[in-house]
Amino acid sequence: MLEQVKYFEDFVIGEGRQTVGRTITETDFVVHAGHSGDFFPHHLDAEFCKTLPFGQRIAHGTMVFTIGVGLTATIINPVAFSYGYDRLRFVKPVFIGDTIRSRVEIIATEPMEKRPGFGRVTERLTVTNQHGDTVLVADHIYMVERRP
Amino acid sequence: MLEQVKYFEDFVIGEGRQTVGRTITETDFVVHAGHSGDFFPHHLDAEFCKTLPFGQRIAHGTMVFTIGVGLTATIINPVAFSYGYDRLRFVKPVFIGDTIRSRVEIIATEPMEKRPGFGRVTERLTVTNQHGDTVLVADHIYMVERRP
Amino acid sequence: MLEQVKYFEDFVIGEGRQTVGRTITETDFVVHAGHSGDFFPHHLDAEFCKTLPFGQRIAHGTMVFTIGVGLTATIINPVAFSYGYDRLRFVKPVFIGDTIRSRVEIIATEPMEKRPGFGRVTERLTVTNQHGDTVLVADHIYMVERRP
Amino acid sequence: MLEQVKYFEDFVIGEGRQTVGRTITETDFVVHAGHSGDFFPHHLDAEFCKTLPFGQRIAHGTMVFTIGVGLTATIINPVAFSYGYDRLRFVKPVFIGDTIRSRVEIIATEPMEKRPGFGRVTERLTVTNQHGDTVLVADHIYMVERRP
Amino acid sequence: MLEQVKYFEDFVIGEGRQTVGRTITETDFVVHAGHSGDFFPHHLDAEFCKTLPFGQRIAHGTMVFTIGVGLTATIINPVAFSYGYDRLRFVKPVFIGDTIRSRVEIIATEPMEKRPGFGRVTERLTVTNQHGDTVLVADHIYMVERRP
Amino acid sequence: MLEQVKYFEDFVIGEGRQTVGRTITETDFVVHAGHSGDFFPHHLDAEFCKTLPFGQRIAHGTMVFTIGVGLTATIINPVAFSYGYDRLRFVKPVFIGDTIRSRVEIIATEPMEKRPGFGRVTERLTVTNQHGDTVLVADHIYMVERRP
Repeated sequence: MLEQVKYFEDFVIGEGRQTVGRTITETDFVVHAGHSGDFFPHHLDAEFCKTLPFGQRIAHGTMVFTIGVGLTATIINPVAFSYGYDRLRFVKPVFIGDTIRSRVEIIATEPMEKRPGFGRVTERLTVTNQHGDTVLVADHIYMVERRP
Repeated sequence: MLEQVKYFEDFVIGEGRQTVGRTITETDFVVHAGHSGDFFPHHLDAEFCKTLPFGQRIAHGTMVFTIGVGLTATIINPVAFSYGYDRLRFVKPVFIGDTIRSRVEIIATEPMEKRPGFGRVTERLTVTNQHGDTVLVADHIYMVERRP
Repeated sequence: MLEQVKYFEDFVIGEGRQTVGRTITETDFVVHAGHSGDFFPHHLDAEFCKTLPFGQRIAHGTMVFTIGVGLTATIINPVAFSYGYDRLRFVKPVFIGDTIRSRVEIIATEPMEKRPGFGRVTERLTVTNQHGDTVLVADHIYMVERRP
Repeated sequence: MLEQVKYFEDFVIGEGRQTVGRTITETDFVVHAGHSGDFFPHHLDAEFCKTLPFGQRIAHGTMVFTIGVGLTATIINPVAFSYGYDRLRFVKPVFIGDTIRSRVEIIATEPMEKRPGFGRVTERLTVTNQHGDTVLVADHIYMVERRP
Repeated sequence: MLEQVKYFEDFVIGEGRQTVGRTITETDFVVHAGHSGDFFPHHLDAEFCKTLPFGQRIAHGTMVFTIGVGLTATIINPVAFSYGYDRLRFVKPVFIGDTIRSRVEIIATEPMEKRPGFGRVTERLTVTNQHGDTVLVADHIYMVERRP
Repeated sequence: MLEQVKYFEDFVIGEGRQTVGRTITETDFVVHAGHSGDFFPHHLDAEFCKTLPFGQRIAHGTMVFTIGVGLTATIINPVAFSYGYDRLRFVKPVFIGDTIRSRVEIIATEPMEKRPGFGRVTERLTVTNQHGDTVLVADHIYMVERRP
């Protein structure tokens, strides 16, 4: 993990980076159920899932989001604060054995009128699988200090 | 877990329910770090956190979201599909030992023009702590089958 | 999770319910070993198990019991208290990949002479696999408040 | 772990052993909830538990049983097979921070008439806490091969 | 677990023992990543690993060491203290599904001149897989009390 | 996580870096016991530990090593391969609540005569706690490709 101070003025639209990949395992499914308390059979009952269109267990949306975001957690910016996410969408299902990676890209920057000294930076998160298909998107909103 | 078929026409704006509570433990912090791969010191380094404004470790946003959503996972509606979330906001920090509970309430229903046979239902999720403070909000969007 | 007050007088012999299913994964085997501290090779050593009659790893009895009971934990009855279990039997082995579900049925109710104000309710737990075979049975004994 | 062949004829009523101790942590509570799927607030919601007679979170019965049994899993007897348990009783609650240990003692041996070549051995399991109070008892029934 | 007092003078060069086996599962890989914080794609990204010489995910060295040592943890010697390890070597990779077991053997004993009352005992740890290949070796150094 | 190709010739004696910190929690103790299978009361029985010189539970040596190494796992060098460790020493105990961080520093580089095209690089790992005390040291040996 690296620390890197990056002020509002340092963010450039179009800048981005790609993470390493991670294979989503049956273990992740079971851990996420136990962590979230969501034991819906869509995620945990292989027999039931044979009767559904996808024919197999489907990852919790909150897990794809959690791991997709987690993959990006490699650089600490001490002057940026997570504010929330807009337009989080579960685009395609993730199955046991899929390998996902995340791409983040700055898509908007604007001063915060109500919060002088801060700017609002929007970073698009795109999670893809091993086929190159997008499985999840979300727009991460940061409050970032302006350069002093 | 109960199964309950609820068609688009059955959703009524203002309807809602409150979940039981769950105390967020140091264990949940450590499990979430290990599950997400996010080991930022804001969540895991008690010494470092003493130097921050909050003075203590702060829950991962993705964890409050995951557990907040998980608390609501008690009734399976086989004709509703999760589409995504809008306006997910981390309103206040969650600390080790806080007890959270979730409230969901239907705030909008509209037919989906591009997808005949389906309607769009928006359910607001509000996660509160033991002081009654809201710590997270998000609008959950479902695609729900229309009554046949 | 729902809360539902059900007094001793409300229990009817023959009443029951069936839970959703859950696939027992290799992850559950490893988690249970780590949780219980029981690392017997019957549960964890695939090579050793090839030399046994079943030819594969066998679930811990305590795990089938724990998950079989856990599947039923969906309705809180604030006037019932778990007293213990009788005749817990490991009827058939559970293997990695089996999907279990639980059925509970009230099989006996009787006043508790030594504890006025309470009755004793016996609920039979039957855990089955995806072939419909019973893998575990146990009689759960509750102390339940009488209707005031 | 040791392997020790012990035939039906080798079991002597009154023989027993005491295990080492293990402190039951908040982690064990959270792990057991996630493993079993039982997220009842009696085990996980510290605020709710303040309103109950015990005033604090109470261990799952299945966890005390699982760990109590797990503590005894140190000697493999290849000619003994677990058949089940009788009279499993949750005698006293276990709280976060309690230290439990198990004692096992042979209390009965009898030939199995329906299964020539095997005997039935009953081993009483007694789990105690750091105050010496019994928190759980159960009678473990084994089928054991007779000496050839 | 057994307790067995064994003084410096009781250790005999060449003495040793073999543990039971344990199959290393995908779960262990995921748990170790989450426990250590090491999410390198060599351990977790099946697609990336297809491009490497071994063609599949490789166990963390610290995991093979941890589980290899853990397998030996069956006898408590209250007069011996772990001092460290010399010549820890990752001899061959461990893959998902491999079954490992450990062998320990006393290879050296010598009085500690600087610490009267103690001797230094070196125990060689050899971890092998199901093919009999050595995957890890290390020399465990103990400080052991001399017989009083 | 970053990828950075660094050939044998690029390593400079004295170069090093410091990681972020991580608080070692009771959860880590319990997870490590369950992962390693080592349930010695020195790590898990708070009552027993009151009778020992340190008066409290002590971290597994393999855990301090695993997490200490894990903290350094932030930069992938595709031309370096872990060969093993020398002089791994458990210098001081780690207790629940301690915060550790790791420092790595190159202490030796030498060509490998038996393996042309590779050099041997030794990186000293020093793990310290929140008091600045060293708790673990080890010399990590890498085989690194020479610049082509």
